Amino acid sequence: MIKSSVIEETNETSIAALREDYDSLGQRLDRRGISIDAIKAQVSDYGVAVPSWGVGTGGTRFARFPGSGEPRHVFDKLDDCGVIHQLTGATPSVSLHIPWDKAPADDLNAKAEELGLFFDAMNSNTFQDQPDQPQSYKFGSLSNTRDETRTQAVEHNLECIEIGKAIGSKALTVWIGDGSNFPGQSNFTRQFERYLEAMKRIYQGLPEDWRIFSEHKMYEPAFYSTVVQDWGTNFMIAQELGPKAFCLVDLGHHAPNVNIEMIVARLIQFGKLGGFHFNDSKYGDDDLDTGSIDPYRLFLVFNELVDASHRKAPNFNPAHMLDQSHNVTDPIESLMVSAMEVQRAYAQALIVDRPALEAAQDGNDAMTATTLLKQAFRTDVEPILAMARLEKGSAIDPVSAFRKSGYRARVAAERPAVSGAGGGIV
Amino acid sequence: MIKSSVIEETNETSIAALREDYDSLGQRLDRRGISIDAIKAQVSDYGVAVPSWGVGTGGTRFARFPGSGEPRHVFDKLDDCGVIHQLTGATPSVSLHIPWDKAPADDLNAKAEELGLFFDAMNSNTFQDQPDQPQSYKFGSLSNTRDETRTQAVEHNLECIEIGKAIGSKALTVWIGDGSNFPGQSNFTRQFERYLEAMKRIYQGLPEDWRIFSEHKMYEPAFYSTVVQDWGTNFMIAQELGPKAFCLVDLGHHAPNVNIEMIVARLIQFGKLGGFHFNDSKYGDDDLDTGSIDPYRLFLVFNELVDASHRKAPNFNPAHMLDQSHNVTDPIESLMVSAMEVQRAYAQALIVDRPALEAAQDGNDAMTATTLLKQAFRTDVEPILAMARLEKGSAIDPVSAFRKSGYRARVAAERPAVSGAGGGIV
Amino acid sequence: MIKSSVIEETNETSIAALREDYDSLGQRLDRRGISIDAIKAQVSDYGVAVPSWGVGTGGTRFARFPGSGEPRHVFDKLDDCGVIHQLTGATPSVSLHIPWDKAPADDLNAKAEELGLFFDAMNSNTFQDQPDQPQSYKFGSLSNTRDETRTQAVEHNLECIEIGKAIGSKALTVWIGDGSNFPGQSNFTRQFERYLEAMKRIYQGLPEDWRIFSEHKMYEPAFYSTVVQDWGTNFMIAQELGPKAFCLVDLGHHAPNVNIEMIVARLIQFGKLGGFHFNDSKYGDDDLDTGSIDPYRLFLVFNELVDASHRKAPNFNPAHMLDQSHNVTDPIESLMVSAMEVQRAYAQALIVDRPALEAAQDGNDAMTATTLLKQAFRTDVEPILAMARLEKGSAIDPVSAFRKSGYRARVAAERPAVSGAGGGIV
Amino acid sequence: MIKSSVIEETNETSIAALREDYDSLGQRLDRRGISIDAIKAQVSDYGVAVPSWGVGTGGTRFARFPGSGEPRHVFDKLDDCGVIHQLTGATPSVSLHIPWDKAPADDLNAKAEELGLFFDAMNSNTFQDQPDQPQSYKFGSLSNTRDETRTQAVEHNLECIEIGKAIGSKALTVWIGDGSNFPGQSNFTRQFERYLEAMKRIYQGLPEDWRIFSEHKMYEPAFYSTVVQDWGTNFMIAQELGPKAFCLVDLGHHAPNVNIEMIVARLIQFGKLGGFHFNDSKYGDDDLDTGSIDPYRLFLVFNELVDASHRKAPNFNPAHMLDQSHNVTDPIESLMVSAMEVQRAYAQALIVDRPALEAAQDGNDAMTATTLLKQAFRTDVEPILAMARLEKGSAIDPVSAFRKSGYRARVAAERPAVSGAGGGIV
Repeated sequence: MIKSSVIEETNETSIAALREDYDSLGQRLDRRGISIDAIKAQVSDYGVAVPSWGVGTGGTRFARFPGSGEPRHVFDKLDDCGVIHQLTGATPSVSLHIPWDKAPADDLNAKAEELGLFFDAMNSNTFQDQPDQPQSYKFGSLSNTRDETRTQAVEHNLECIEIGKAIGSKALTVWIGDGSNFPGQSNFTRQFERYLEAMKRIYQGLPEDWRIFSEHKMYEPAFYSTVVQDWGTNFMIAQELGPKAFCLVDLGHHAPNVNIEMIVARLIQFGKLGGFHFNDSKYGDDDLDTGSIDPYRLFLVFNELVDASHRKAPNFNPAHMLDQSHNVTDPIESLMVSAMEVQRAYAQALIVDRPALEAAQDGNDAMTATTLLKQAFRTDVEPILAMARLEKGSAIDPVSAFRKSGYRARVAAERPAVSGAGGGIV
Repeated sequence: MIKSSVIEETNETSIAALREDYDSLGQRLDRRGISIDAIKAQVSDYGVAVPSWGVGTGGTRFARFPGSGEPRHVFDKLDDCGVIHQLTGATPSVSLHIPWDKAPADDLNAKAEELGLFFDAMNSNTFQDQPDQPQSYKFGSLSNTRDETRTQAVEHNLECIEIGKAIGSKALTVWIGDGSNFPGQSNFTRQFERYLEAMKRIYQGLPEDWRIFSEHKMYEPAFYSTVVQDWGTNFMIAQELGPKAFCLVDLGHHAPNVNIEMIVARLIQFGKLGGFHFNDSKYGDDDLDTGSIDPYRLFLVFNELVDASHRKAPNFNPAHMLDQSHNVTDPIESLMVSAMEVQRAYAQALIVDRPALEAAQDGNDAMTATTLLKQAFRTDVEPILAMARLEKGSAIDPVSAFRKSGYRARVAAERPAVSGAGGGIV
Repeated sequence: MIKSSVIEETNETSIAALREDYDSLGQRLDRRGISIDAIKAQVSDYGVAVPSWGVGTGGTRFARFPGSGEPRHVFDKLDDCGVIHQLTGATPSVSLHIPWDKAPADDLNAKAEELGLFFDAMNSNTFQDQPDQPQSYKFGSLSNTRDETRTQAVEHNLECIEIGKAIGSKALTVWIGDGSNFPGQSNFTRQFERYLEAMKRIYQGLPEDWRIFSEHKMYEPAFYSTVVQDWGTNFMIAQELGPKAFCLVDLGHHAPNVNIEMIVARLIQFGKLGGFHFNDSKYGDDDLDTGSIDPYRLFLVFNELVDASHRKAPNFNPAHMLDQSHNVTDPIESLMVSAMEVQRAYAQALIVDRPALEAAQDGNDAMTATTLLKQAFRTDVEPILAMARLEKGSAIDPVSAFRKSGYRARVAAERPAVSGAGGGIV
Repeated sequence: MIKSSVIEETNETSIAALREDYDSLGQRLDRRGISIDAIKAQVSDYGVAVPSWGVGTGGTRFARFPGSGEPRHVFDKLDDCGVIHQLTGATPSVSLHIPWDKAPADDLNAKAEELGLFFDAMNSNTFQDQPDQPQSYKFGSLSNTRDETRTQAVEHNLECIEIGKAIGSKALTVWIGDGSNFPGQSNFTRQFERYLEAMKRIYQGLPEDWRIFSEHKMYEPAFYSTVVQDWGTNFMIAQELGPKAFCLVDLGHHAPNVNIEMIVARLIQFGKLGGFHFNDSKYGDDDLDTGSIDPYRLFLVFNELVDASHRKAPNFNPAHMLDQSHNVTDPIESLMVSAMEVQRAYAQALIVDRPALEAAQDGNDAMTATTLLKQAFRTDVEPILAMARLEKGSAIDPVSAFRKSGYRARVAAERPAVSGAGGGIV
């Protein structure tokens, strides 16, 4: 944690300007019939989960270039997550990754309570072999041709549920790297049958008040075919499994040019949207910072969410999580900025004039309809976000406050430096 | 039609070489435990439908450059289709497009009988306005915001069914261009609800022994969103409509890099593959000649079809049709060559050693598995196709026979030249 | 033209709010050390050319759905362009397309003067055959295998120069659709040699104070290969031709995922950026309204332009033009909004803190660098644009003023309705 | 090495069938006026280099799943390369990667001589930090903002040249991962200026009889921009550096849908094609086995090479190398099969009827032109390749012979097993 005095001092320098900007924005919104305080309240209530692995420096298959003060274990990671939430007030929960984050439940719960955090969805890992693991996932996990391997993967997921139950989680996210690298390597149909059979076993172990999220991805680590390759297959899975099964959408897991906001709309319409992994991408699953490449796309996704909420779509309760790889920035800074980008898109979507939009849509007035979205998008809602933070005791400018706090240097002194040759997700 | 003597004469020049090649290929296949005659019989029984619009020269939004002897009406088109089937023995059916191919049923039936053809799936058109049409499709047809427009589009489809019933068709293919060009122009959810409601009305008018095929397409003519944008949405439609509703896969209608053979496998697995529009593409919906850009991809699609047939997948009876735009070739030549490319992929898929493939897949021997596919693919099965043609009285080399026949010059004399400024699908 | 009283009346309703917003933005910018009036002056001086073909409704290969009051000839088109400039003050020039815009130079000059417009780059057309044209471009124009055809295309371009000289144009834009639809159809090398030889003949006819712009495009209307397929080939062309030859960048003419702003930077660095065709796209060359799909990308392009201007890059004087196809909106509205989107991106790029950006770049502080861009981008500069318009006698809200003016209904009464089956560029 | 008796014994089982197939193919080719022995001689003379890193199991950022008998150092790698060449007769050279393959030149030369191999292009590495390396490449190497880092990278490349001189290499391949992950992180222009300045220093150290190859790549490991992002930038580099500088084309380093064979043609035409990294891909830089995904594309590339050779293009002497990542197969098997796929594409390109093709191209007979290519492509040239191998004492079926030899089990016993968590290129 950071001393609250550091936050207060940095806030002090910009508080006057913020009040001015908030007022002036309030007047402009008022002219459009929007109460800035009502928007601020919704933004203030909004939270996005941080993935425990996000606070370490990421890497590629070519290399990993660690930063200083890399977290050594789940408690270091939680400390970093605590700072992110302290400064932004936007990330109250953490999503753990098993086996890397295994620790006694009591210790986890105590640490979380200390930091004002709670635990979001659990994440299993069957895309990497662990030392002493009897069966290898080289040729797949839940869809492997060998019974023993599938069973091992199922049991790992069931263990994740058990761990989650002890720390208050209510959801399991299943992403697998299963697929093939050569035409013919796998029989698509039999492979998917095996996957469904294994998932059904996991589903049977799911508590009544839990949800299971399957996550699709076009490719990587498999490069010719992937078992859960797109939202179509993901939807089939959720249907086959039952009412507690939902689809998770990672913004970077689609084919080039695909209209992602439309996929979101379809999954909402059929009651199967489970949640998001937010990030941004230009080429593939780049895992870049949310909103850093195409902020309008992020806004359009939130436009669907606010629209669904507006018309009270049934079965609509998506989980929100960041999922990024921070290769060239301080992960704490990236996660703070990304959490605020998600809030920004949400705030912008909230100020869309929905009755006017609906009228323009019904009248096929494409120019008016799209202008209504653009007007909301180009509204600089930063004062709303900053005021929500200020009122929570968080930072008006979290990155500045973080830099002034000396946190990174402090943990760098405590946590030994690590070497980085070779990529890897840990 | 072409005089059979022309075919016989051109066949004469290559018959000896063909017999030699057929025998030598027969021996090579025999070594692999495959009977060449059995493969030939299956190829000989195989047919792919020709779309009536395919015999005219296509175009782009920039221009259309007509060839000589462009068909003036459905009877000219049928004549051209008759020649294609006469020379290849591979295209026994024709798929009509309404309103352009409207004509008295008796006349159509008589003409088809004369040419040895029958009628395949009917195709409706609601992507273009016709003169005197009360409602415009500028802003959509089956998903239009206006009731009158949706009803007009439904009635047009019902009319297509009526026409089809009179000429022996058993299926209706529905492709619409509905979508939007701007974020916000359409509400994705309400638009899709309207579409589903309209399709249900059409479905209700479908005779018991008919099938309805919905066709997805990523984009074009709408450039921001498309109502039936991918196979996921298409699958939802087929599920919503009922057991007579199936998904049609056009090979050129997917996002870049997408694994199409896997989509085919998924639709088969869930009993919803309706059929194909065959063509090839490099960039978008290029409508290039089947197999001209990526012949291995075509083979991999047929590998799924033969595999499904092999394991007797339920509800598996896909329709096969060509759907191409011929901008720089003689359409008759392109359709003949494309029909043969489809046959080629089918023949190659038939000679895959499936028990060995299954064993390699089960043992995760990716190299053996993929080599089995490549060995089948690189087998030059042309002698099988040519022998199947010869035995039907078709041409060993259909393009040569067509060029020698003088057919194009003959119809050019009968059919007036047309001008070409402006693209267009007619 | 529209009565100035209409503009004044609509301005009247929002002038007070505008002054308030302008002042409050001025204060916020002032805090960052930026003079809002200086930015406004630069925006006010900025202009983007309108293409004469843009004022008609566009179409696709499937259909064209004309609006009311479609322009019948170049003088109607100029009238529409006049309105666009009158209301936005942002489009002082028009780019003509030959042969469609052929007319006596005196008449063109008189009309332009009357409307306060001038003529920008000339555009030749060799992608479509004209009636009575001796040679067809079906198999290419400047790269055709036949001498006569290439010569015809060269002469057409020389004629465009002659026309342009008479109306004050100083540049020729050459875009051709030449390419191939099948592997093997064209020999890439010989085809490009023919193209270069033909372009050299055009170059020789270029007046000393003119520039020639070659335009690359990945695909369409050719679907396997295109002669000027990307900026690499385009750069080779500009190098081969000489110092008056430059590359034109159309934002929609690139492969999926390509970093366009980087291409812009490279062409500037090597002194060969000729100009832009602005539009937006999601899938291919969608020709959607500028900034409608990915406004941040547009900003990043302008960030390169302002950066180049800032460091006084040599040979840097790009032409700016819109090039869009308006299928579902009123073309006048789309062109007005698009011109303002271009201005918006320019204004946002102008307020980037370049010394701070350079420092962050030199220090590899990626987070600060990217945040500086995002801060500029999310600044709502609309009051600057609107104030610039107001001060010119243009409209604070051009679309509202246009709708109130009744212009479209007026010209619809004068110009007969046209039918729309079939796509086409005219 | 493998005992020659193993090869002889496995050959014995298929030698009769091979002679039969060779004769029958010879007759078919003879009918087309082609001498099978002449083709065989060209295939036999052809060789493709193996990268030293290719014989180890690859990985992704998610995981690496090593196989048994992984090579421990350059001499193990050379042993494996020796086996590949022994069995295929197609890979006489090895391309080393520094620093991993550093060893005394005398030892390298002795080992290579023992195995009948020689050394191809040297590969530097500045995309990963080595232990004790003073400057980090986290923010780039040859284009880094810091002088010290650029100089370190330059000196590493100069050292690669020195190592190469001692072992008979004649070329340096430079691939860097430099780029950025955020808009604004790097100034494209200054970054490229730094890169060019550094490359010029390397170029100055290049011996007279050496060539330097720069390699472009669209993305990865940088995910927003890459310094040498495409062939356009690569061409600029080769031009700036001088006559010993050439562009290297890796088949997997392009944007989706790009026409790679055309890029090859352009680089040949302007005398700047340096060579290839062969592999195949479906999505990004998948580094899949050559020809495994789109064998026709590989053929079309070779069609350009044979065409260039045919017309004696100046400055045309490309280097040929495999560059793949073998994640699920035995690397030795993959490299053998890939080397043969390259030979296959070469052999198929050699039998294209070039005079007929040229005539069809000149006459715009697209159907005949493309059919000529397809006929060559679908010719099963395996008997030619196998006969060339047999006559060299290599294996008719290298994979079978390798499996029978027990080589993998033997080296697995000698080389300790390694663990695999974490990806990485070593």
